[in-house]
Amino acid sequence: MQLITDNFRKEMALRVAKVQHLMQKQNIDGLLISSNANLYYITGRVFRGYVYLSLDHAPIVFVIRPVGLEGDNVIYIRKPEMIINELRNKGIETINNLALEESSSSYSEIVRLRNAMRFENTVNGSTLLAEARMIKTDFEVEKMREDGLKQAKSYMQISSVFKQGMTDTDLQIEIERILRKNGCLGFYRTSGPLMETNLGTVLTGENADNPTPYDFAVGGGGIDTSLPTGAAGLSICSTNTVSVDACGNFNGYQTDMTRVWAPNPETLPEIAKKAHNCSLKILDDFQQNCKPGHQVAEMYNRAMQIVTEANLEEYFMGHTQKAPFIGHGVGIELNELPVITPRSKHLLEPGMTIAIEPKFVIPGVGPVGVENTYVVTSSGLECITKMEMQIMQL
Amino acid sequence: MQLITDNFRKEMALRVAKVQHLMQKQNIDGLLISSNANLYYITGRVFRGYVYLSLDHAPIVFVIRPVGLEGDNVIYIRKPEMIINELRNKGIETINNLALEESSSSYSEIVRLRNAMRFENTVNGSTLLAEARMIKTDFEVEKMREDGLKQAKSYMQISSVFKQGMTDTDLQIEIERILRKNGCLGFYRTSGPLMETNLGTVLTGENADNPTPYDFAVGGGGIDTSLPTGAAGLSICSTNTVSVDACGNFNGYQTDMTRVWAPNPETLPEIAKKAHNCSLKILDDFQQNCKPGHQVAEMYNRAMQIVTEANLEEYFMGHTQKAPFIGHGVGIELNELPVITPRSKHLLEPGMTIAIEPKFVIPGVGPVGVENTYVVTSSGLECITKMEMQIMQL
Repeated sequence: MQLITDNFRKEMALRVAKVQHLMQKQNIDGLLISSNANLYYITGRVFRGYVYLSLDHAPIVFVIRPVGLEGDNVIYIRKPEMIINELRNKGIETINNLALEESSSSYSEIVRLRNAMRFENTVNGSTLLAEARMIKTDFEVEKMREDGLKQAKSYMQISSVFKQGMTDTDLQIEIERILRKNGCLGFYRTSGPLMETNLGTVLTGENADNPTPYDFAVGGGGIDTSLPTGAAGLSICSTNTVSVDACGNFNGYQTDMTRVWAPNPETLPEIAKKAHNCSLKILDDFQQNCKPGHQVAEMYNRAMQIVTEANLEEYFMGHTQKAPFIGHGVGIELNELPVITPRSKHLLEPGMTIAIEPKFVIPGVGPVGVENTYVVTSSGLECITKMEMQIMQL
Repeated sequence: MQLITDNFRKEMALRVAKVQHLMQKQNIDGLLISSNANLYYITGRVFRGYVYLSLDHAPIVFVIRPVGLEGDNVIYIRKPEMIINELRNKGIETINNLALEESSSSYSEIVRLRNAMRFENTVNGSTLLAEARMIKTDFEVEKMREDGLKQAKSYMQISSVFKQGMTDTDLQIEIERILRKNGCLGFYRTSGPLMETNLGTVLTGENADNPTPYDFAVGGGGIDTSLPTGAAGLSICSTNTVSVDACGNFNGYQTDMTRVWAPNPETLPEIAKKAHNCSLKILDDFQQNCKPGHQVAEMYNRAMQIVTEANLEEYFMGHTQKAPFIGHGVGIELNELPVITPRSKHLLEPGMTIAIEPKFVIPGVGPVGVENTYVVTSSGLECITKMEMQIMQL
């Protein structure tokens, strides 16, 4: 089986050139890629092994498993200690400044790779790779658009599976099935080992205000202390809202999308309706005003201003516990760059794909607010998770 | 909310004593725990933060998130740099030999923790924690038994959801729903960041012989190159077998279990029936002969001998690609100690919980063989994933 398909060869060259450009700027002449997310980014496939990038050679792909992958510069090794001789055989004799994925590989793995590569010190290539992946190619944007369509299509089926008397967990299970039937791969890929969830988060009533171990605006206590996040087995009450923020990974890329339903949207308390409208107002403001060149940090400030004017700070991005951002890049991993915080140094650039999620938790009612994924184009933010944004009848 | 519940306090003391015993043997006087799996092991709950263990103080629990956890020695911090002063306030002035989770935390995180703790070098506490967790307490064994019952109950429902014309992926989706309806938490916790799967592996026909990036005997190509493992969207053919190896995590612990079905078990080729019986023979041999004190490595050799006598080496533990083990510890994580390989140095001990999986891949037919989870008791192996072991009618 060809490791790098003919379809992907041109795309791979684009991605490699982007990474090499950042390597050059940082004076890095060797980068050994080892994480699933970045192996997939460079080669279009997950495998156990490494990709070695230099500034003036074609990428060299070291495969441990699976057997049977073929292609130019594909070399089978049993262990990383074999890499350095293979590089020499390819004419790569000197590496001055080697980067490894120090933010995602374990300490033990990095020490092993340093020894294998005969380096006492290496530099961290994780941010460089994250920055390269922040700006998607046209090919990647198409994958994101495909995800957005499939995630929205799945969400449109949600009200059809709801039955009176269901708990949040019951509903989540049916939503997982809808997603999977529509092609969802059935797992999230996230950056960092700490964030653990199942296939989505269905939250209602008081549970939305249960704080989680993670930076989530809307968390939930879960059904077990080993996974204290998400649906909690609560009955969906006729006076509450229900939010759904479930897995949008259909093709290795993922979109991120939240919508809100209620058994009785009309009779929800005014404060819940007001907060939901405030979320829509923020998204609308961004679509009107945020174009390439706009400071990402300023987006956070714009949102806070709209929230403050509406006097809704108390509920914004969580109530008992607040998340310190209102959006994040999304792609191969759920949590990519840029992060929309007041401290971001990024400017909006065409090719970014960003989930924007101005959410509120209303005690006694539940979560409100919409999350969409947007592609930054030359003219501004293009929503790729299109669906009704009002609170919908469950 | 109490972080450490009254129910869990005595259990926590047992676990802490076990870890302290291993620390003492390795001359370690401080251990900073940081992974979700080990935070859960020590406190009974996942949170974002750290637990500091020393030889002569009660554990100190540092919490970053969620807000609102209470208890003796629970200290809120914003960042790990605050730990050292808090330890001094508790009278812990000197640490000579500090262990960190170097095999599971990222290089960047370990460097940050070392700086925060004013250590130039630390030792790796990962193996020590894995060794402690290898021998389950009675409380843990009960959780495993509960899992085994629920996983077996779920598997007993599988034939009822099968419909003619289904693909392996279709069947997997229905199995995921059964598991979730029976209380499965909807995610695997695995050791190491590289192994990625969705909620189970349903394999049939040729796809079982597709090698994966992982150490799986029976792999599958998956439906996307970003997750190249498991079901591949293949129709379940009347002359093939179907194996199910799905998530047994119902309560933070997990059992591991595989069974085989076929649309027509009677008319399968003799080689498939023979290999399946060989798997059962190995499991039976282990139950007869493997008691506490038995060398784990010798179990591997026993199995190989039975396979060789049956002349089935070609198909054992994979065909195109072979897994180098026939079983593994299981508990909070799917891949725990001991690992049943010829190089294991472990002896069977009461309290181990081990998944044993002598499997075969028969080209053109599919996977056969059974996987059960066993508790090692003083009298031998107690199967906790009890269900019919013959190839069942789908």
